[in-house]
Amino acid sequence: MMPMVPKTAVILAAGLGTRMGEKPKGLVKVAGREILYRTMHLLQKNGVKRFIIVTNDRYAPLYWEFIEGHGFPAEIVINPEPEKGNGHSLHLAKARVSGKFVLVMSDHVYGEEFIREALRGNGLIADRKPRWADVGEATKVRVRNGRVEGIGKSLDEWDAVDTGFFLLDEGIFKVTEALEREREGDYPMSEVVKRAKLEVTFLDGLPWIDVDTPSDLKRARRMLVKTAVKGTGDGFISRHLNRKVSTEISYLLAEKATPNQMTVVTFVLGVISAFLTLFSLPLAGILYQISSILDGVDGELARVQMRTSRFGGYIDSLLDRYVDGAFLALLAYSTLREPLWYLIALLALLGSVMVSYSTERFKAAYGKDAYSSIPALRKLPGKRDERIFLTMLFLLYPVETSVKALFLLLAIITNLRVVMTAWLVGNESADL
Amino acid sequence: MMPMVPKTAVILAAGLGTRMGEKPKGLVKVAGREILYRTMHLLQKNGVKRFIIVTNDRYAPLYWEFIEGHGFPAEIVINPEPEKGNGHSLHLAKARVSGKFVLVMSDHVYGEEFIREALRGNGLIADRKPRWADVGEATKVRVRNGRVEGIGKSLDEWDAVDTGFFLLDEGIFKVTEALEREREGDYPMSEVVKRAKLEVTFLDGLPWIDVDTPSDLKRARRMLVKTAVKGTGDGFISRHLNRKVSTEISYLLAEKATPNQMTVVTFVLGVISAFLTLFSLPLAGILYQISSILDGVDGELARVQMRTSRFGGYIDSLLDRYVDGAFLALLAYSTLREPLWYLIALLALLGSVMVSYSTERFKAAYGKDAYSSIPALRKLPGKRDERIFLTMLFLLYPVETSVKALFLLLAIITNLRVVMTAWLVGNESADL
Repeated sequence: MMPMVPKTAVILAAGLGTRMGEKPKGLVKVAGREILYRTMHLLQKNGVKRFIIVTNDRYAPLYWEFIEGHGFPAEIVINPEPEKGNGHSLHLAKARVSGKFVLVMSDHVYGEEFIREALRGNGLIADRKPRWADVGEATKVRVRNGRVEGIGKSLDEWDAVDTGFFLLDEGIFKVTEALEREREGDYPMSEVVKRAKLEVTFLDGLPWIDVDTPSDLKRARRMLVKTAVKGTGDGFISRHLNRKVSTEISYLLAEKATPNQMTVVTFVLGVISAFLTLFSLPLAGILYQISSILDGVDGELARVQMRTSRFGGYIDSLLDRYVDGAFLALLAYSTLREPLWYLIALLALLGSVMVSYSTERFKAAYGKDAYSSIPALRKLPGKRDERIFLTMLFLLYPVETSVKALFLLLAIITNLRVVMTAWLVGNESADL
Repeated sequence: MMPMVPKTAVILAAGLGTRMGEKPKGLVKVAGREILYRTMHLLQKNGVKRFIIVTNDRYAPLYWEFIEGHGFPAEIVINPEPEKGNGHSLHLAKARVSGKFVLVMSDHVYGEEFIREALRGNGLIADRKPRWADVGEATKVRVRNGRVEGIGKSLDEWDAVDTGFFLLDEGIFKVTEALEREREGDYPMSEVVKRAKLEVTFLDGLPWIDVDTPSDLKRARRMLVKTAVKGTGDGFISRHLNRKVSTEISYLLAEKATPNQMTVVTFVLGVISAFLTLFSLPLAGILYQISSILDGVDGELARVQMRTSRFGGYIDSLLDRYVDGAFLALLAYSTLREPLWYLIALLALLGSVMVSYSTERFKAAYGKDAYSSIPALRKLPGKRDERIFLTMLFLLYPVETSVKALFLLLAIITNLRVVMTAWLVGNESADL
């Protein structure tokens, strides 16, 4: 935890959205979670302890229900004139805030990486290379000497896009007070930003998007799915094939399936593929590869829907080992006859479980992820996605030799990988 | 860490030992480590930051070498009159100490549990049920209202034995000052204790022993070995057979072998036992069981010799899996002919690795030991020590049926155990 993270966040949620239906935009769900749940949960996770939500009379009861349902430590401030510019909403939070605080818009979806990095910034967080937001609709800023010089939707020259995320301190209320007097309480945030000549922190290309229309919602969902890939342990096939497909599936299922459902479906398909070895090797291999692709979906959905659980990850990885074990055991049973080849199949099965054992046992011993701690591990061949893809290839036109060659290859690759892993861990052990 | 642990420890090491040879007693090694290395290392691990060693002119250079060799944050105070009582040695530390501090004797060997608990106490730490020390030779204390009333080697009535470990504060120096004047600097610690009417904290039956003679040294070694068993993951056979033998072996090897040497020896024996399945099943089974007993020795030696390493534990557990895998694979190869039985052997091998995988994966996910977190896990049958013992029994009079029965039994026990583990983890998951 950084010691500098402000303890309070002010959320502007008074605007009367029109293009998204009756619901306040902060309570519209993306991938099963309200936009504000995402923002508040991530802010809390990164050290924010208290929230001030400025909203209007009509939305207040809905926000109360939301806050209480999730147990967020939040207060609500009513803006009785929501039709006025949202600078006034900020001003209404004045009495509840002191020192440094976060200011954030209720209709922006932020990814975890954005929140984590933005909290280390200062002033207006601006993005010079927005990757997900619609730049046409966005508020642009022109920056000079690290401070805002101009701001607006239709600036001719601009340097970056306003992300709706600010780190301010109570000094900002001097500016709002002046504007209250001059404009009779009707002025937008951009006016406050310009008048305060806010400091600008650039944060480029990280996941954030403002949601104005149903099509923005879809883009938000896609953003969340694409940034939900954990990936440190992904092999070559996973990076170049499986993840491309699995994230598309996760995108389609983001609102429709739970991670647990996908774990079950993937496991059942894997077990079916194992039994298919008794009937058709090519079909078995193809279904095995399909289950390998689907195997990414439960984890992706869990991260996208903010429903990750240690138990979910635990069960998922036990089931993966059993699918692999069952596939190799039944493949051996249906194709091999000689004891020597069974011996090789036994070693292939042993190696295949040991690949996972050697990285999980590392985490148990050292308390950190093997792939992050020892990047060289990522380059070793023989990860699950690669083994399964190889298995599928060898089973496409199966002859006796090809199945035997597969077992021999698996026995060598996997056990060699374990030896190499142990060697790399030993080499790095002093620094871990 | 407890916030109350004193930052400074005074070590009395001025006494001119005679029965243990030329070396100062604090530098005599037990199981490969100087007595004082053990005490200082454990105190450091539990929060002590600074040491004051009071010794004599002759020993000072040896203690300097020791301190510098290990990089301990220690100062040395010379007692020019070591022949006088050791109360004077404590008095000499006066200028270097303020507030609370630990006082400890250089010729006592303490186990980790003792040090951890003693640091939470106050005054004199006394043991009502000394398990390792020679009570005949020990200093006894009589306690009244929680304070020392009498102290000496030959008290008629006594409540507990002085462990040589004290938690004092600077007030104690008022007592030593008075005694300096009255006794011309010649008074033992027991005099200080009595005069101060020290508070007494009882700590019963934990590992500590004072070392006066070579036979005390042997008892110290035995104490360290017997208390070095980690054991949370030990199965029935391990608790009732393997550990009894392995600690005897560790006792014999404590000064003669390193943990790494024992890891290699155990692995090689295990691999030989696996290949023996090709020649003699009873011999293979017996050697496998012997390697299972020896498997405890490397960990015991590592703890006794204070040479535990995460990498050592990591490699040891990979090698165990490979010994088990090789044994089952070669046993299957040398005895089975029908594919169906190979299928069962494949499932037995899978289950056997998965038993370990399911607990190590737990630690990786939850960051704590599975057996400590979920005690019910300890009661599930199917741990390695039990499987190996069972294997040996089935191979003593091997007929075709008995080997098949063994594989079937292993396949069922191990995989059932994994299912039960997952179920228990799921049940407890919310509280973990």
